[in-house]
Amino acid sequence: MVEKSPHFADRLLSAVAEKNAPVCVGIDPNPSHMPAEYVLDSTDPMEQLEAVGKWAAEVLDAVAPHVPAIKPQIAYFEALQGPQPFFGMAIYAAIVRLAHNMGLLVVGDAKRNDIGTTATAYARAHLGQPDSVDALTINAYLGADGVDPFLQVGLPTGRGAFALVRTSNPSAKTIQDFADADGKPFYRHMAEQIAAIGSEPALVGTSGYSLLGAVVGATWPTEAAELREVMPQQIFLVPGYGAQGATAKDCAASFKADGTGAIVNAARSVIYAHTREEYKSLDWKTAVATAAKDFAEDIRNGLASAGKG
Amino acid sequence: MVEKSPHFADRLLSAVAEKNAPVCVGIDPNPSHMPAEYVLDSTDPMEQLEAVGKWAAEVLDAVAPHVPAIKPQIAYFEALQGPQPFFGMAIYAAIVRLAHNMGLLVVGDAKRNDIGTTATAYARAHLGQPDSVDALTINAYLGADGVDPFLQVGLPTGRGAFALVRTSNPSAKTIQDFADADGKPFYRHMAEQIAAIGSEPALVGTSGYSLLGAVVGATWPTEAAELREVMPQQIFLVPGYGAQGATAKDCAASFKADGTGAIVNAARSVIYAHTREEYKSLDWKTAVATAAKDFAEDIRNGLASAGKG
Repeated sequence: MVEKSPHFADRLLSAVAEKNAPVCVGIDPNPSHMPAEYVLDSTDPMEQLEAVGKWAAEVLDAVAPHVPAIKPQIAYFEALQGPQPFFGMAIYAAIVRLAHNMGLLVVGDAKRNDIGTTATAYARAHLGQPDSVDALTINAYLGADGVDPFLQVGLPTGRGAFALVRTSNPSAKTIQDFADADGKPFYRHMAEQIAAIGSEPALVGTSGYSLLGAVVGATWPTEAAELREVMPQQIFLVPGYGAQGATAKDCAASFKADGTGAIVNAARSVIYAHTREEYKSLDWKTAVATAAKDFAEDIRNGLASAGKG
Repeated sequence: MVEKSPHFADRLLSAVAEKNAPVCVGIDPNPSHMPAEYVLDSTDPMEQLEAVGKWAAEVLDAVAPHVPAIKPQIAYFEALQGPQPFFGMAIYAAIVRLAHNMGLLVVGDAKRNDIGTTATAYARAHLGQPDSVDALTINAYLGADGVDPFLQVGLPTGRGAFALVRTSNPSAKTIQDFADADGKPFYRHMAEQIAAIGSEPALVGTSGYSLLGAVVGATWPTEAAELREVMPQQIFLVPGYGAQGATAKDCAASFKADGTGAIVNAARSVIYAHTREEYKSLDWKTAVATAAKDFAEDIRNGLASAGKG
């Protein structure tokens, strides 16, 4: 077992190496896709919430042998109504604790953003508690004023952030391709800003990677290869594989030649694997475990095909 | 009393006209600025939370005669720890209900952002419940994919969104001034996108304003005047007055010649008015009420000086 540094990037690299799996699984509880046994007829909101918690605990148990990290999507937990609005956030917190107890790293997908003391409040809420996630996604549209507070709160405990640079969705193009007189697109400008903010020596771990990472969609492999050069110290969090259409080959563009530097996320294609034709002969939990194992293998094969690692 | 349409922009215009005050008050509970009587020695997290709730209820009571709307900043509520992480969101929900009972409109300052079903989950959490806020701030870095879900969820009940266009902070410049070959800055490109998305006829109220508004910082009055032309159907939510340095004259740039089209926010300078030299002879609640009244009057005077309204 590799000795673990408290720095998020170092811990992530160790955990990825241990499981030979540069991937994480998105935990997006959507009652309309969950196995029937977790979708209750009950109108009691506490029972509904508990069912989601039980389902998520089984999903974590199924994927933990195969992946080093999970990425719960906070939006789905905020949307879960309980005895009062936003009560689903209690389920989120419980899942983060459970994942940590299983030895999994946790990236909270929150895309939070604000400035100054307000950004510090978000950072304390999400990265400053004893049971906080290991890293949080943030949106850097407000510039360094909106990024630094997350890094300042995260640094003492080695917690990190992933800033949106190039998102995986179609309309990313409309906004993020806006180009200057030299043809440089806005996403590259954002990447340069993130690389500069993240290069502060205190933020860089023994692995050479910064506490500040970047979100780069796998659906844009040409852009990802370009951004890999612009942000040498950033771990890429890579959405877009599977349900959004990107392949393992597309994902390989976000990795360095040594096979490090990125972690690919899949959510629906793993956690709702029981709804997929190829896994339908399996019970739902075995389907999830098998899909997680297959997902990691596919990404490994994609890297091997690209001659990386 | 003006008859109220269910459309957010129409309701806001009516409420602003009734109180002759194009302003809202930011509710940012920061225990280090709150009056001493609400900062407890108790280490019981529930008692701390209840104290914040009681303080906020008094602030609402103080400002309600003078302003049509409040803007609670969700970051501070997420950061309030209770018996479990994020429990402060229960206080947020309670304050929204209380404000509605007092006849105040509520803008939730959440800057939420994501795509597809995930953005829909955020929208349902924040705009889709019986007691939801009247409008929510969002971050449009992901393009229309990240904006439409909020509008789709808000439309049936006349709830709106304010997308970040030009933020009030210094480093906004680093990101948002990135310019194309014609010298057009990125914030203007974003403004054009927001104007286009918001121009769909179903979104436009009888007032001519859209359910999709824009956040435009008062600290950049020249840019605000330019953006006022680019986004004729957007209500501007204007941060930056007071503690961030913008004056009433600066704020006037965000309004149309008829005095409509914007709502100026102030938080610290009103809700912590008891810490300001000019109000220190007053008890804290009277200081807050007086500062809210003075704030509205200052903005009215700024509009009058600019020959608007």
